[in-house]
Amino acid sequence: MKAAYYKRNREIAIEEGTRPAPGAGEVTLKVAYCGICGTDVGIFKGKMDSRVGNAQVLGHEASARVDQVGEGVEGFAPGDPVTVMPLNPKGDDPIRRAGLDHICESLEFIGIDAPGAFQSYWKVPAHTVFKLPNSVSMKRAALIEPIAVACHDVRLSEIETGGFAVVLGGGPIGALIALVAKAQGAKALVSELNPFRIELLNSLGVETVDPAQVDLPALVKEKTSGTGADVVFEVTGHPSAIEVATQLPKARGVIMVVGIFAEAPKVDLFQFFWRELQMRGARVYEPEDYEKAIKLVEAGDLPLNSLISKEYPLEKLKQGLEEMEKGGEIMKVLVSLEN
Amino acid sequence: MKAAYYKRNREIAIEEGTRPAPGAGEVTLKVAYCGICGTDVGIFKGKMDSRVGNAQVLGHEASARVDQVGEGVEGFAPGDPVTVMPLNPKGDDPIRRAGLDHICESLEFIGIDAPGAFQSYWKVPAHTVFKLPNSVSMKRAALIEPIAVACHDVRLSEIETGGFAVVLGGGPIGALIALVAKAQGAKALVSELNPFRIELLNSLGVETVDPAQVDLPALVKEKTSGTGADVVFEVTGHPSAIEVATQLPKARGVIMVVGIFAEAPKVDLFQFFWRELQMRGARVYEPEDYEKAIKLVEAGDLPLNSLISKEYPLEKLKQGLEEMEKGGEIMKVLVSLEN
Repeated sequence: MKAAYYKRNREIAIEEGTRPAPGAGEVTLKVAYCGICGTDVGIFKGKMDSRVGNAQVLGHEASARVDQVGEGVEGFAPGDPVTVMPLNPKGDDPIRRAGLDHICESLEFIGIDAPGAFQSYWKVPAHTVFKLPNSVSMKRAALIEPIAVACHDVRLSEIETGGFAVVLGGGPIGALIALVAKAQGAKALVSELNPFRIELLNSLGVETVDPAQVDLPALVKEKTSGTGADVVFEVTGHPSAIEVATQLPKARGVIMVVGIFAEAPKVDLFQFFWRELQMRGARVYEPEDYEKAIKLVEAGDLPLNSLISKEYPLEKLKQGLEEMEKGGEIMKVLVSLEN
Repeated sequence: MKAAYYKRNREIAIEEGTRPAPGAGEVTLKVAYCGICGTDVGIFKGKMDSRVGNAQVLGHEASARVDQVGEGVEGFAPGDPVTVMPLNPKGDDPIRRAGLDHICESLEFIGIDAPGAFQSYWKVPAHTVFKLPNSVSMKRAALIEPIAVACHDVRLSEIETGGFAVVLGGGPIGALIALVAKAQGAKALVSELNPFRIELLNSLGVETVDPAQVDLPALVKEKTSGTGADVVFEVTGHPSAIEVATQLPKARGVIMVVGIFAEAPKVDLFQFFWRELQMRGARVYEPEDYEKAIKLVEAGDLPLNSLISKEYPLEKLKQGLEEMEKGGEIMKVLVSLEN
């Protein structure tokens, strides 16, 4: 039983631990793979120390097999392939009463507020566990969590079959938004600065351009017969991107706020008035997004293996975090716990 | 036949003219009343000189009776009481092809881009004319245009019966939004700085508070059992108001951008992400909003007479514009052309 602890100041400590036993309502999982999320990189850089504490196991993009099932848990047996929706609402609050568990005030995010999946054995509430079809490989299953993010964003955007989406930011989430939108019959154009990602996405059939080299508003007009995009997904969190985002949608078009804005950027609200634009925030996912993501992975239509740039054992988690921080020729990095 | 021309540099010239004859597809109206809009005040202050030209008849909140009917126009007869939806789309563009005539690129706004209703006789395209029930007085009918704005804003907000609306800004449009929302079964709280308007709205049963004297976010929480507002209508166009606006909605609540922001304000997009907020722009109205506004005025449920602060003959249009510019003890000012 190994576990990787984030201990502040960019320290990741691999420690031996005791294989946990599940309590009532819990399941212990043997982790297979866990992807590194941009949020993990932010934590590694010290951006969330007050929330994370000084010794936390990160990781929330996991595939696993059931190890032990706790008292009162039904529907799971040892060996079952599963993934985890790492959301654990703990209390009662108005948002939860409105049926929005995934963004409620009492939400515990497993892998940030509670121990995550960068460890051999992982104890989680049974309600977070989703069973997988046997046909889904553990490696691809580790992408279900970020795919569910993309499914949530695309669902809330209400883009229709044949609709035109622009995705600002072609990292893992932006790439998956474009792929999910295309999988349900929409068209997608990605805007991204990183040449490796531009080439990778184009090779996967996702048209991707460098906004420093093309006139993005003109290109979107051209591709939509002068109408503008049905939906713009803002995935970068950069102030300059939200400026472009308001120029791209059609009248009554939708801007999805997926990126995390550390500071409030200037937003051209006159354009919202003048063209009756819409903006919607989207955060994490709901169970139906997990179901959809599992179906998409099972169907095998998404080129997931091509999105996985590196695969490291747990001992090299720090190296993976550093490479993601550095950027360059990288998309998704997986940590393997199968050995 | 008298007409009031805006001639730049705060000049309003009353001139004698020739009673116009309607061309094919046109109707000539004998104007009864025309309200002064905030936009007219902006034009009077010189804010839209390049668009308006150097001799334009303003005015677009009119009640009137049909004077003459042009060739090919059916359904109108001299003497019919009418109001005008002052939108004249002139060409073909993608927004119009999408069915959004009211915000299309080729839109001519009558009273800004073409002669308006501050004149005894007014020639307009027949498609802009809405017949009124005989029971509606000409004075109250002059409020149909701003009521239609409110109907449009409330409709696009999708607020439900029993829903809680906050209206930032209690001028004529904000007041009418609150009244229209209440008329369809929602609750409304108005935030306004002007003491006269606060007292007036409270006397009409619209709860109105001064945000400098109450903690508006705390008050909204209290009135919604901790949930937050279903819809926030931002009607001021002030940067500080959009900051408050993001604090008031419930999770997935809606901010309607009704106010005109001359400069792009800072908007806390993190809150949009975190609580999945929505924002929607709303501009002018569509025919169904006019139909709704006419029905509301016919039903007599809105306290319209109380909203009319002053009534001036055309010769005193300049005085009305100046008083609206100054603010103070004023809500809606009507210009009468009936004498």
